[in-house]
Amino acid sequence: MVLVKIGGSADLDFSAICSDIAELWQCKKRRVIVVHGASQFRNKIAEKLGIKIRKIVSASGVESYYSDDKFMDVFLMTYSGLINKKITAKLIALGVKAVGLSGIDGKLWVARRKKHLYIKEGQKLKLIKADLSGKIYYINSNLLLSLLSAGYLPVICSPAVSEKGEVLNVDNDAAIAAMIQPLKVKVLISLFSAPGFLRNAADENSLIKKIKARDLIKFYSSAQGTMKKKIIFAKKAFDEGLEKAYLGDGRIKQPIKKLFSGEGTIIES
Amino acid sequence: MVLVKIGGSADLDFSAICSDIAELWQCKKRRVIVVHGASQFRNKIAEKLGIKIRKIVSASGVESYYSDDKFMDVFLMTYSGLINKKITAKLIALGVKAVGLSGIDGKLWVARRKKHLYIKEGQKLKLIKADLSGKIYYINSNLLLSLLSAGYLPVICSPAVSEKGEVLNVDNDAAIAAMIQPLKVKVLISLFSAPGFLRNAADENSLIKKIKARDLIKFYSSAQGTMKKKIIFAKKAFDEGLEKAYLGDGRIKQPIKKLFSGEGTIIES
Repeated sequence: MVLVKIGGSADLDFSAICSDIAELWQCKKRRVIVVHGASQFRNKIAEKLGIKIRKIVSASGVESYYSDDKFMDVFLMTYSGLINKKITAKLIALGVKAVGLSGIDGKLWVARRKKHLYIKEGQKLKLIKADLSGKIYYINSNLLLSLLSAGYLPVICSPAVSEKGEVLNVDNDAAIAAMIQPLKVKVLISLFSAPGFLRNAADENSLIKKIKARDLIKFYSSAQGTMKKKIIFAKKAFDEGLEKAYLGDGRIKQPIKKLFSGEGTIIES
Repeated sequence: MVLVKIGGSADLDFSAICSDIAELWQCKKRRVIVVHGASQFRNKIAEKLGIKIRKIVSASGVESYYSDDKFMDVFLMTYSGLINKKITAKLIALGVKAVGLSGIDGKLWVARRKKHLYIKEGQKLKLIKADLSGKIYYINSNLLLSLLSAGYLPVICSPAVSEKGEVLNVDNDAAIAAMIQPLKVKVLISLFSAPGFLRNAADENSLIKKIKARDLIKFYSSAQGTMKKKIIFAKKAFDEGLEKAYLGDGRIKQPIKKLFSGEGTIIES
């Protein structure tokens, strides 16, 4: 199985990405799943609606957003509404029978709500009221596999759902790591707003072409912002059975073809 | 098959509706489909985002909205994002494995884009630039039937999709009429912001308790606003094989149980 991850930046070329996914869908004999983000769209719509969003830093130094009711409403609107359906419609235009699903639908991504939330403020650790964020512990792979065998390409996004029906913000990279083993994902293609894995996030010329999965952790201490958790969950994905990850630029034409021809970063087990 | 239609008003009691749907799901042996609206949520979010929406009246006197790109973005956000997922999560909380889908997903509702748009301005007929609205001509009943037989309750909303992948605004009542025959729907339950079918829309005491389907058309000339098209598509639904429709109040507790105990309006073939 091949899993394509599309980042959440507004500067990605969604048409070019969908075009390459449609080809991949044919040549991989319909063993493809798409997971996407929408964070920049969410933040932009939240701003337009006058909803203040609050960036928080976890105890381990990982950045995220405080997910209250209003934030989750905008989350649903932009992830499962706007972007999920636009990607799905683009794939349909290319002849692929895509089905857009959130982690809620059919209990696709089941999560446990976090009970405690420790955040870092400067060097201080602070306990704040738990928000609507969660940790995935179950993937409904039956639903995905039956859709795939009926010829449908699943296009999936956050949020997840709890057993109680709570709508929970979960990290896409964590969700992907949780999908590797039950869906036997061997290849991950991750498209975002950079030419690949950069040694220095501010320098697009600092691309690292090849990484061994066991060496990923070496980059943890120097990683910044959301890169820290990306490294953790990439490592976890390889621990769960992933064999190869292609990381590369989603802003350009033929983004997947270029990764296959050697551009971007390849991580191998 | 029983189809439950939930209107798009913000004053509906979605929790009470979902509670009754969960019971219906058990007692009808999982032969239930839900279709919902979100028009008041859409219009409210559009207003907050500063997107002007334009009411138009068709040549036959039917009211709708001019559906341009921006309007359709808000449509996706509120129908397939916000409300579809909230209903789905509420049903999951009640132990029902619901799957939220728009008409786009898996080409569930395929529509043809309208080429011409005639609108009425006062008594004059005017041809305006075609918008992103369409007419449904195909229902992917295979997808719905396979979800149902796997134990999932489909929760469906507009928009639809064209063969070209265009996201198209379609009327929910038209979509429901198109679903009757392929899905062998015999019973329709329609919940909205009134006690049932009213002789005079402004008077909640003018409830009509029973109507024969063949008599529906008698109410057409006196009907106002969106009621005109509701009558047309209700008639069509009965022509396609519907046997019974319960129309009633979605603002109250136990809305479906009360319809079954004789409140609201019953239309019979």
